[in-house]
Formats: sequence, structure tokens, C-alpha cells
Amino acid sequence: MDSGKSGDATAVTIPETKDKGKGKAVTWAAPPSVYSVSTKAEPSPRPGWKKGVAITDFVLRLGAIGAAMASAVTMGNNEEMLPFFTQFLQFHAQWNEFPMFQFFVVANGVISGYMILALPFSYVCIVRPHAVGPRLSLMILDIVMMGVVTGGASSAAAIVYLFHNGSQDANWIAICQGFSNFCKAASQAVVTSFVAAVFLMCLVSLSALALIRN
Amino acid sequence: MDSGKSGDATAVTIPETKDKGKGKAVTWAAPPSVYSVSTKAEPSPRPGWKKGVAITDFVLRLGAIGAAMASAVTMGNNEEMLPFFTQFLQFHAQWNEFPMFQFFVVANGVISGYMILALPFSYVCIVRPHAVGPRLSLMILDIVMMGVVTGGASSAAAIVYLFHNGSQDANWIAICQGFSNFCKAASQAVVTSFVAAVFLMCLVSLSALALIRN
Repeated sequence: MDSGKSGDATAVTIPETKDKGKGKAVTWAAPPSVYSVSTKAEPSPRPGWKKGVAITDFVLRLGAIGAAMASAVTMGNNEEMLPFFTQFLQFHAQWNEFPMFQFFVVANGVISGYMILALPFSYVCIVRPHAVGPRLSLMILDIVMMGVVTGGASSAAAIVYLFHNGSQDANWIAICQGFSNFCKAASQAVVTSFVAAVFLMCLVSLSALALIRN
Repeated sequence: MDSGKSGDATAVTIPETKDKGKGKAVTWAAPPSVYSVSTKAEPSPRPGWKKGVAITDFVLRLGAIGAAMASAVTMGNNEEMLPFFTQFLQFHAQWNEFPMFQFFVVANGVISGYMILALPFSYVCIVRPHAVGPRLSLMILDIVMMGVVTGGASSAAAIVYLFHNGSQDANWIAICQGFSNFCKAASQAVVTSFVAAVFLMCLVSLSALALIRN
């Protein structure tokens, strides 16, 4: 009788706690999964470490946004017209007359946009440091974006080098003596874009670390 | 009788709580899957899949060696001298007079050497598909090498573009009318190098897949 009553009592209390709020459903689901983790990987693999990686990931992403956006804006506003001209030459240099600079601006703009869109997913990785799905998809997109930004920065760097030094072999003259501000802005944009590329490289390496099963 | 009744009562209450909200169905479904995971994890989850990834990794590495070596050799032997000259111009084009092509050849040579050195480690990953150490170190080096080869290929591509089209803005004339063979070889080398970059991109993504804890 007593045991039956106590059994009844528990049967009542459990639904009560369940019914208190919808949040309970989550808490109710949590304990078994916690046990399963502890049995699966016995010493509960340093969740704080993974969280630290996820937070670093978020911060690096902010840095990459800043760098990519700065380089896109710097290059996108890059234009110089010299105050003199001859009959044949109009001394005017603009970024969008060089296809590599167009690619550069587009690439850095795309990276900025992607990075902003990726921030929520990065936040999910902070909240759930063990989630594999968002981290893996972010990582593979990061790899592609790393290729894009490195390509854009390198091709722009090649052109900026020619601006500075020209090429004797191809009879291309350096134009930086004339367009010094144009050259300076282009160089700054290239350097900033390489900084974004390094940020992305760190991001991919960090994601690789976070994906290790431990 | 009483105890039987109380048992009946609990049997009723539990389904009731399940039916109350759709969230309950999830909570109820969780425990069995958790147990299945914990039992699944023990007997080394799908080793064949990981082995397949490791073998693909090895094959991709061979492809990357071929592509990088081919582009380094093509560019490294790229030279053309036209059979006529004027008083002022000697029509001679050689790869090592362009610093971007020098970087290109060095980058592709380094990639080839690294890939050859990495083959034994890739083989270790085939033999031990669950080893994390060699895979992670290979992956991080692959990321760096991907950056290097993408940078080299992109800067060379920018120069090859200028060879073909010149730049009105900077008063650089296209030189491909004259040096057609030089241009053709340079373009081939650039394309092959981009193939190597794509191989490396696939390698990094594959390593990411292989690193997932399962």
C-alpha cells in the first residue's frame, strides 16, 4: 500500500515539474545527454577549452570583417587625377579601370558580407561548443573565402608592384612617380587585405583544432 | 488492487504528459538515441569511411604534386626571344625578369617538395585512420600551402592578364602579339597552378571531414 502510494506520488510530481514551463522540456532532456557524454568520453573533454576556441573564432571574425571592409572601401574610393595633362594623355587613374582591382574590391566585399552573415553561426558555436554541423560548414566556407581573398590580394599586389617598379622587359613604366596617392592607397588596401587573409587562415586552423574529437 | 490502480494511474499520466506538447516527443525520443550513441562509439565508428577519406587524401596529394610540378617546370623554362630587334629594344622575354613569376616558380616548387614529404604522413593516415596528430599537422600545413599557391597563381595570373590586354590607364601595351609562345606557356602554368590550388582546397576540406569526432 505504502509503496504503491509513494509510486503514485512520484508519478504525480514528475509531470508537475514538467508542466511548470516549457523550458523544463529542455532541462528534462539534458540529464540523459549529460550522462551519455560522460560515459562516451569519460573525462568530459574540457568544454571550457572549446568555448575559448569559439570565442577566439568570433573575435577573429570581427577582425576579418574590419580588415576586409577597410580594404574594399580604401580600394573602392581610390582615384587620382593629376592637375596637368597633355594632348595625348589624360593623367587619371581609377581603381575600376584595372580588372584585378575590381576583383579585389568584389572579393573583399564578399568576404565582409559572408563574415557578417557567419557571425550568428559563430555565436552558435560559442553557445554549443560541441556542435559539429555549424563549425564544419563555417570551416569549409572559410577555406573557400580564404582562397578568394588570397587570390584577390595577390593579384592586386602584383599590379601594385608593377605600379611601383614597372617592367623593363615588357616596357611598362612605373606610374607611382605621378600617381603617388593612388599608389599609396592601393598599397594600403592590399596590405589590409592580406591581414584579412591571415585572419581567415587562423580561423580555418582554429576550426580544425575545434573539430578534433577529444 | 490499490497498487494495481496506482500503477494504472502512472501509466496514464506519462502518455498524457507526452501528448501535451510537441517538445515532449523530443525529450522522450532522446534517451534511446543517447544510449545508442554511447554503444556505437565504442567499437570504432565506421573505420572504412575514414580509410576511404585517407586514400582520397593520398590520391589528391599525388594530383597536387603533378599539377604544382608541371606548372613550376612550365614557367621555369619559359623564355622567348624574337628573331628581330631594333636599336633600342631587344625582344626577349624570360620568366625570371618578372618577380611574380619568380615567386610563382618558387611557390610551386615548394608545394611540390612539401607534398612529396607529406606523402608518408598521408600514408600513416591510411594505415591509422583515427590518428589525429598527423592529420591535424598535415591540415594546418596544407592551409598555409594553399595560401602560398593561391597567392602565387593569382599574382602570376594578374601579370598574364596584363600580357594579354595591357592597361590603357597606365599606358602599358600588351606584349602577347609579339611573345605569343611566352604568353601561352605562362597561361598554361597559371592554369595548372590553380588546379593545384583546387586540389589543396579539397585536401583541406577532406581533412576537416576526417577530423570530425564521430
